[in-house]
Amino acid sequence: MAIETFKAVSRKLPEGLAVESEVRGFKIILDEPKELGGTDKGMNPVEALLCAFGSCQSIVAAAFAKAKGINLQGFWVELEGDIDLDGFMGKADVRPGFQEIRFKMHIKTDSPKEKVEEFVKFIEKTCPVGDSIANEVKLVLTDTIIE
Amino acid sequence: MAIETFKAVSRKLPEGLAVESEVRGFKIILDEPKELGGTDKGMNPVEALLCAFGSCQSIVAAAFAKAKGINLQGFWVELEGDIDLDGFMGKADVRPGFQEIRFKMHIKTDSPKEKVEEFVKFIEKTCPVGDSIANEVKLVLTDTIIE
Repeated sequence: MAIETFKAVSRKLPEGLAVESEVRGFKIILDEPKELGGTDKGMNPVEALLCAFGSCQSIVAAAFAKAKGINLQGFWVELEGDIDLDGFMGKADVRPGFQEIRFKMHIKTDSPKEKVEEFVKFIEKTCPVGDSIANEVKLVLTDTIIE
Repeated sequence: MAIETFKAVSRKLPEGLAVESEVRGFKIILDEPKELGGTDKGMNPVEALLCAFGSCQSIVAAAFAKAKGINLQGFWVELEGDIDLDGFMGKADVRPGFQEIRFKMHIKTDSPKEKVEEFVKFIEKTCPVGDSIANEVKLVLTDTIIE
């Protein structure tokens, strides 16, 4: 077992819906576009989730290409996912989150097709963010602190 | 039904493991720290997932406080989650993603405690990123393009 615990803090900014998150000194501001009630200071959380997923696949590809015998000259992913906003708005009894996420991998390589297809399956299986979205993760509210 | 489709593109940068993602002109670079093989140009994808989750809760809190009768003067979330890196490294047959994510909500308000506790339950239930992590999402690889 090599359990590692990753941490983050998210803090609502004083105005509007924008939120600043911090991890090890790195910061990101997420917000909503105007049509969803925000001031568009950054991408929104569900878009950030897509970025985390696409980045994770890209990092798995880059980290394991050599060991898997793939000459990786380039890698990019297009992602899209559907949400029924009626769920979030409480207007319908549907899940508030993603119903489906589709993605398309672009791989620049001169390695044989069969080897690349095997590598793609490896990426899908190994990606930590992909696993965290595709399968259930236990979410535990440990405390609510009223200040 | 009010289906909205959100989109992102993630592209591996020429050197190392770093990846740049783009959504509607907003960009974020994710990488790995040196001990995980990267060059530490940004937070990593699983940390970005935590930020997306904490930000999503914060946005739900901010967006719905008034309608739920909560005088929300401040809101922040601490998050942490465990991953067994042996899964990612293929050294053990464990899931590569999060095994558990714990979070602690901080709410600055003078609203009554019972009302706040009800509001916390509402946030947990309504958060789109939380639902996407807690429950299964269908991931579909629509195409692999070898370039």
